[in-house]
Parts: sequence; C-alpha cells; structure tokens
Amino acid sequence: MSLSGNLLIGQRAIAGTQAPVFAINPATNAQLEPAYPGGSREHVELACSLAWEAFDRYRDTSLEARAAFLERIAQNIEALGDTLVQRAVAESGLPQARIQGEIGRTCFQLRTFARTVRAGEWLDVRVDEALPERQPLPRPDLRQRHVALGPVAVFGASNFPLAFSVAGGDTASAFAAGCPVIVKAHSAHPGTSELVGRAIQQAVQDCELPEGVFSLLYGSGTEIGIGLVNDPHIKAVGFTGSRSGGVALTQAAQARREPIPVYAEMSSINPVFLFESALANRGAALAEGFVASLNQGAGQFCTNPGLVIAVKSPALDDFIATASTAIAKSPTQTMLTPGIYKAYSTGVQALAANANARLQAKGAESEGHNQCQSHLFVTTAHDFMRDHTLQAEVFGSSSLIVECDDLAQARQVAEQLEGQLTATVHMDDADTDAVAKLLPTLERKAGRILINGWPTGVEVCDAMVHGGPFPATSDARSTSVGTAAILRFLRPVCYQNFPDSLLPTAIKQGNPLNLSRLVNGQRVS
Amino acid sequence: MSLSGNLLIGQRAIAGTQAPVFAINPATNAQLEPAYPGGSREHVELACSLAWEAFDRYRDTSLEARAAFLERIAQNIEALGDTLVQRAVAESGLPQARIQGEIGRTCFQLRTFARTVRAGEWLDVRVDEALPERQPLPRPDLRQRHVALGPVAVFGASNFPLAFSVAGGDTASAFAAGCPVIVKAHSAHPGTSELVGRAIQQAVQDCELPEGVFSLLYGSGTEIGIGLVNDPHIKAVGFTGSRSGGVALTQAAQARREPIPVYAEMSSINPVFLFESALANRGAALAEGFVASLNQGAGQFCTNPGLVIAVKSPALDDFIATASTAIAKSPTQTMLTPGIYKAYSTGVQALAANANARLQAKGAESEGHNQCQSHLFVTTAHDFMRDHTLQAEVFGSSSLIVECDDLAQARQVAEQLEGQLTATVHMDDADTDAVAKLLPTLERKAGRILINGWPTGVEVCDAMVHGGPFPATSDARSTSVGTAAILRFLRPVCYQNFPDSLLPTAIKQGNPLNLSRLVNGQRVS
Repeated sequence: MSLSGNLLIGQRAIAGTQAPVFAINPATNAQLEPAYPGGSREHVELACSLAWEAFDRYRDTSLEARAAFLERIAQNIEALGDTLVQRAVAESGLPQARIQGEIGRTCFQLRTFARTVRAGEWLDVRVDEALPERQPLPRPDLRQRHVALGPVAVFGASNFPLAFSVAGGDTASAFAAGCPVIVKAHSAHPGTSELVGRAIQQAVQDCELPEGVFSLLYGSGTEIGIGLVNDPHIKAVGFTGSRSGGVALTQAAQARREPIPVYAEMSSINPVFLFESALANRGAALAEGFVASLNQGAGQFCTNPGLVIAVKSPALDDFIATASTAIAKSPTQTMLTPGIYKAYSTGVQALAANANARLQAKGAESEGHNQCQSHLFVTTAHDFMRDHTLQAEVFGSSSLIVECDDLAQARQVAEQLEGQLTATVHMDDADTDAVAKLLPTLERKAGRILINGWPTGVEVCDAMVHGGPFPATSDARSTSVGTAAILRFLRPVCYQNFPDSLLPTAIKQGNPLNLSRLVNGQRVS
Repeated sequence: MSLSGNLLIGQRAIAGTQAPVFAINPATNAQLEPAYPGGSREHVELACSLAWEAFDRYRDTSLEARAAFLERIAQNIEALGDTLVQRAVAESGLPQARIQGEIGRTCFQLRTFARTVRAGEWLDVRVDEALPERQPLPRPDLRQRHVALGPVAVFGASNFPLAFSVAGGDTASAFAAGCPVIVKAHSAHPGTSELVGRAIQQAVQDCELPEGVFSLLYGSGTEIGIGLVNDPHIKAVGFTGSRSGGVALTQAAQARREPIPVYAEMSSINPVFLFESALANRGAALAEGFVASLNQGAGQFCTNPGLVIAVKSPALDDFIATASTAIAKSPTQTMLTPGIYKAYSTGVQALAANANARLQAKGAESEGHNQCQSHLFVTTAHDFMRDHTLQAEVFGSSSLIVECDDLAQARQVAEQLEGQLTATVHMDDADTDAVAKLLPTLERKAGRILINGWPTGVEVCDAMVHGGPFPATSDARSTSVGTAAILRFLRPVCYQNFPDSLLPTAIKQGNPLNLSRLVNGQRVS
C-alpha cells in the first residue's frame, strides 16, 4: 500500500494546500516521503460539517452496529501487516517488537470498547416510574440515559504512534460513545497516521456508516489544531501531549461562544516512594527495577518514574549506588523526534546546572542521532520544596531522587507535589503503618496508586484510571485509558412521561437491551 | 431563635467587617433587621483553611456516618419550625404554602442523598482481578472507586431560598460526595441563610464531625464570591443564577493556577412545542395549563416556559386567544427582589419595543411593590431566527409564541435554539411521526424532554436531569437536581496491587459494604 500524503475527509482523499509536513526518521535524521501538505481552514470546515451531518445517524446506531464498527477497525488495522510496522518503526525510532506490541494493544483496546458498547453500562439507565397516587403531587414517569456529546477533535500523541494516536484510546472511546471523530495527525508520524486513517475510513465504508464519522487532517497547531477546537460543530476534545499544548487548547475551548470540555493528558513526574523495610530487604532489586522502568522506551512515557522519594539511610545509599551503576551501563536509545531529543537535552542540562540538585549518574554516550542518555539526579527534600522548577517534567530517561530527613518530611514533599497520573509505593509488611499515613495524600494527588510495581505499564481494563489532578490532566474527573474513558464523551438526558413508542430503545419499559438499570432506586441487573 | 447577623465559620460565629447586607421585604420594600456585615478576604481564608483541614477526615467517614449527617441536617431544619417559614416569607415575598413546600423538598432532598450515600452506587466500584498467568505479561490487580474532589464553594440562588440555597441540592450533593462546603449566602435572604446555616452547623457538632465541614459567608460577589473561587483549597463550585454571574465564575475558575470545575446553572427559556393534533383536540386546556405554568411563582423558575413554538393554524389562533384571556386575568405577584423586578420590567419593555415581536396580552396592573405583571408576546419563525435577542431569558412571567409556516420551519427554529434545561412537547397519537422527527434535535439541545407536561416541576429522583448544554449550564455532563448530582464532586482513583489491609473498605476483596460492582467485566449486584 503506497502512501498518498492526502488528507482523509470523510470518504475523500484530498491534497492539502498548506506547508507540507515530512516525517523524519529519528535514527538517521533522514526525511521520509511522501510530503503531507497541511490542511486549510476550508478543510477543517468540510470535515466538521461532514461530522455534524453524520452525528445524529451515527449516535443512533444500535449497540451491536457500533461494536461491529470498532471491531472492523481493529481487523482493518491488523490487515495492514508489516507495512504498518515498518512505517511506524521508521517514523518513531521505536523497536519493531514495541510497535508490534502497540498494534496489538490498539486492536485489543478497540475490541474492549466493542465489549463495553455491547454491555451498555455506560448508558447509566435510570428509571423512576410514575406514582400517580402520590401526595401532594403525582410523580411522572422519568427515565435517564446518556447520549453522545457530538463530534470530537482528537490530537494524536507522538510517543504512542498507534495506541494514543489516530485509532488510539481517545478515538476508540469517542466512537464507542457515539461521537464522530476528526483526528489531527501528529506531525511526527504522518505515514503511520495515514495508514491507520485509511483503515478507519475503510471500516466506515464497510459498515455503511455516514462518511463524516471520521476524518484525518494534517497541518499546523494553529491552522488545524485551534481551528478544530474553535469550530462550532466540535463538542469535545481529546489530547495527549505537552502541558503548554494542553493548556492552550483548554483556553481556546473555554473562550468559545459555547465552551466545550477538553480532556488533555499533559504532565506528570510519577513519584515513587521507597519505604524503609522494602529498601532494607530488597534495595538492589528495587534499583534494578527502577532503572528498567526509567529506561523503557527511552523514558518517553507519561508514567515514567521521574521522581523517587525516600528517607535517608544506608539502604537508600545502597539503592542510589546500585541504580547509578545500572544507569551508567544503560545504552543510549533513539528518541522519537529531534524536537523531543532537544527538549530532553535542555532539561537535563538545566538540572545539571541547578545548584539545588546534583548529577548522580548518567548513561553511556553515543554518536548516533537523537540519542537519549539516561540521567539520575539527587536532591534534598529541603531543596526540592523550595525550588518549584525541580517538579517540571523532563520527558525522557531522567529521574530525581529526593532524600528526606524522616517520614514526616517525605509526607511534606508529597503534599507539595502537583497533580500526578500515578504515585507508587514500595513497601514490606513492616512499612504498612507508614504507608497508611501517606495514602490520603496520594489519593488527593494521583489518579492511580501502585504498590510494589512500576507505573510504566497501563492496563486497558474497566478499573484503570489514566488521569489525575492538574497538571496531570485538564479534568481529574476522567480517565483516558480503560473503558471508563467512554464517559468523557457523554451527557445525561431525562425523558419525562414518554409513550413507550417514542422512548429510545435503551430505556423502554420492557428493557429490550437487557441492560443493568437503576429502577425506583434499586439496581436491577 | 434570634438572628445574629454573624458569619458562620466552622463552629464559630464571627461578625463581618465589610459593608453590611440587609434583607428587603419585596412586598413592602422595608429593610429587615439584622444587618449582615460582609466577610473579608481573611474570613474566606479561614473558612477555606478549616475546610481543607476537615477534608481528609470527612471524606473518610463511613457511608452510614455521612448519611446520618445529612439526615441530621434535615431534622435540624425541620426543628426551626415557623421561625424559618416566617423569615423566608418576609425575605422572598413567596407565599407561606410555597415556603412550607420548599422546606419539605429541601429535607426530602437531604434524605434522598442519605439513601444514595448508603447505596454506594456513586462509588462506581470496578475490580479487575490479577491474571498472573496472562501472556505476554501478567495483569496486576486493579480496583477503582470514586473519591471526593475537595472543598466546594456553593452560591445560593435567590429563587429557591431553601431548595437551591444554603442546604439545597449543591450542598447536599457535595456533602454526600464527601466534600466540605462553604456557602456564599445570597444577599436576598441572609436571615433564612443564617437559620439554615445554624442548623447545619449544629448537625456538624451533633455528628462530631470536624468543624470545617461547613461555613457560611455573607458579602460581595467580588470579595467573597471570586475570593472563594480563587482560593487554592476550593476544588469545585456549584452555582445557580444569572448567565453573566455563571460565566464570570467559570472564567475565574479557569484562570486559576489549578483550574477547577464550575457547575453553573444559568439561563434557559424552555421551549414548548405544540403539535397539530394536540392543539386541535385540546387547545383550550393547553392554554390554561400553559398560563398556569407561566405564572407559577411569578415565573421565577429556571424551567419557566418562556417560548412556545407551533405551526400556524386556526387551532393555534384559538390557543393564543385563550392564553391571552387567561393572561389578562392573571393577578400580579410579588417578585423576589427589587433587582429581579427591575430586570423583568426592562426585559418586557425591550420586547414590547422590539419590532420583531408584538405584545399579545398582559396581566392586571397593581399599585404594590415589585409586582410582576404577566406578559405574552408573539413573533414569526422568520423574525425569531434573524433576531438572536429574542432568545434572551426574561426572568419572570413572560413568554413568547413563535408562529411557524410548517413543521420543517419549526424544526429549523429548534435547531437555532441555544442549550436548554428542558424542552416540552404537547402531542396526540396522530402527531407521533412529527414528534419523532423533532426528538433528535431536542436531545441535542436540552437536558430533559417532557411530553404532555409542563417543565416547572423538577422531581428529586435518580433519573432527573436538571442540566443541559451551554448556556443552560456550564457543564452539560451533569445535573444539579436528583441523585446523579453527587457525581459532580467525585473523581476516580485506581488502586493497583494493594494488599487487602490497605484497600479502602469499598473495594476490599470481600465486598464488605455489599456494593454493586463491575468485576472482571461483569455487573455483580
């Protein structure tokens, strides 16, 4: 399958008219063909108009039809085979096994949302039957279900060219909710985006859905990105990327005549707390595990363990020594883009030059392009708490260890943290009381709390929360991974005193979809 | 019980230091004692600090303890007896029976949230058990529950001095979620606010909760209102009031270092669609029902039917004639405040002077203070669609009838409407097809759709949605009435690989609270 470089607007393939984007192979800095000319304001308007035209029909599809669409997308992506793997490897610099795993995750995610759509829990059906005899006033029949918000603009992320991109979690959950999707492709992987976009475009046709259910645009953050957010037909936004990017989109969305929700997953340093007994009993293993997590994917994960907090002790000294040895042995890895490499280099240089932190260890050097060299820094709790810049995310394999005088100070450090996607605790039984005292703080700070694990694995399941207080995300009430992500793109509607013939199927009296419902205050499964 | 005029901050009663507010009896324009000196920035900070101190302990209360607190508030309000009724009547100009009913509604609402807290559905418990043998990687144990957002600032509304004020739906749902509450009293009813505030303050003491769970402040929108929204300890806002007020609070909340959600219920004109067969069969009864709904409480309801849309016909002419006669016979009613009366007068004068509408009928005149004279205007669909000012809410007993050429034009009018709290349809069986064509539009525009009813009654139940797209509210994903209102003040947290001893009770393996849960993808009740 050859790449066309065209915008995909509904079922059409249209050549862009603005400055082109080229992918760059970060391992070689070579420019990859073809050119991806950017879309214009007219292309944004066309995609949004088609999405709006498609909305009522798409949101009214049966649960089965919508689930089948999600499964068809997965099938079409799998059919791309090695073409997709090779292009994604070339555009991202990620190893082939990682890309293959990510394709598997993406398709699993689509099928998981298909299961979620069929189960229908997300409709949150509530039925309060009429009470005609109630005094002083009768109660009418009242029924609630959730409906789709409207067309959603999705911004692909650079670090997961499949799982958080064109057919990633935002797209899958918006489709599942009944929302048409317009994706702004990330400029780092336009070819991967086109391949996946064509798989979705084909699935729209295969399933005989209205063409506006999906479009894919390339182009600048202003012309396409802000253009999409400002279009009155767009009713919600999904974004994974930088803090500055997420904040800019949120501000644009709030400045609209009709403000809309933005789900931006932005910035997190994912604190890891090492407790005394765990450090004493298995400090060396923890150090190895920590460095493995830190180095995974060159540290280019939103859940990368960028901060370690522990009370000073000989066991902590041993942990630092073992981690430093492992860091020093770490080979370099190709980063996703020259821009990310540059930002990483600037970040670690700033830390190295900061009098409030000391460089403890760094990885091997290398002559290749865009090579991430792992870094480990150490600071004291005192310095950390007075220097807010030490909380800034350095995207890549860099972490900072904060040495505390005692547990009370470690809790103080936790209290001063910004919002996080994750917080991790390593503990043994003897640490239980100390951990229990810290947990209330972690619950207020993070979307996910792990015990004796590493934050870099994010399961796609019902219980996952990939979210958290600002600046981890722009909306702590949501998750962007896992089936609860569908809830972001829904709103409740109440139907009062409807004849059964006009009620939506999901809330008809006979419960024809066999949904779990809250009926007159009782859960009926 | 005599009124003190004091701020209630935790368990303290503190005299304000800023310009005083006095209630005014709108029926006489007489100023009511005592003075309520406004709070200062220091009072805001004290209330917020106490709320923050109370937060971890309050959110960790058992479901039973929290439910008992809500029930105790209801009991303490009921114990105020006639003192509360008389003060509320004097401050609001509302009839005694209405105030008695509203006290009943307020206490019913508190007890309904107690039931909701105990049932625990709002925790949305999800359990994905560990799969240690899964290939290529094992799955850890993952569990999700919802936790409280943090202290909530609540702004009392003028038009429901009890049910949407100090112990109203926002306060009850925030308490139910586990959030401390700081109320900014509405300046129209400070005495009612103090009485209810003392009932809550007493309940906090009765239940041995930390004092910061509740505070009540009086004062200006800037000093107290924006001051609360800007305080870093405040994590969400509940508001019912004007569009300009809601938008200002939302903008302030978004401009914070850490933006927070604002649930502002603002502006709605609640379109009523009259279909051909219903009009022909029972136009006169519909006209009587319409005027009764319009005049209820001098039209000072967010769900007041401010817009009627129908296709031109002799039956519509009859409807207008009958409604006009009923309007002309309508006695005046005292409005809530001189300010509301003035805004209403300005609004109806602007409509009367607008060439795109004609005054069809108005109610009796009267010499009393702040008397609302009902108004009925008529326009054409053509004029309505070209004059956006005709969509502005006129708070009070004023409504506008839009005459359409045909059903297609009526749907066009519906498409041009802003977001609404409610949309109402009056139909007979023969209208079913025409109604079915309109419903998709109404679902996109409104939070609640009624058939053959009037929007002015809002049930407190599980299925209610008192919300809707902007400008009806600032967040269409929520409701401010009914038990789903609790969901506004929660966020999900995921617990990964926790030993059972450290898991919150709600998500322990043995399900000790006997909650409905989603376990490995299956609903287990």
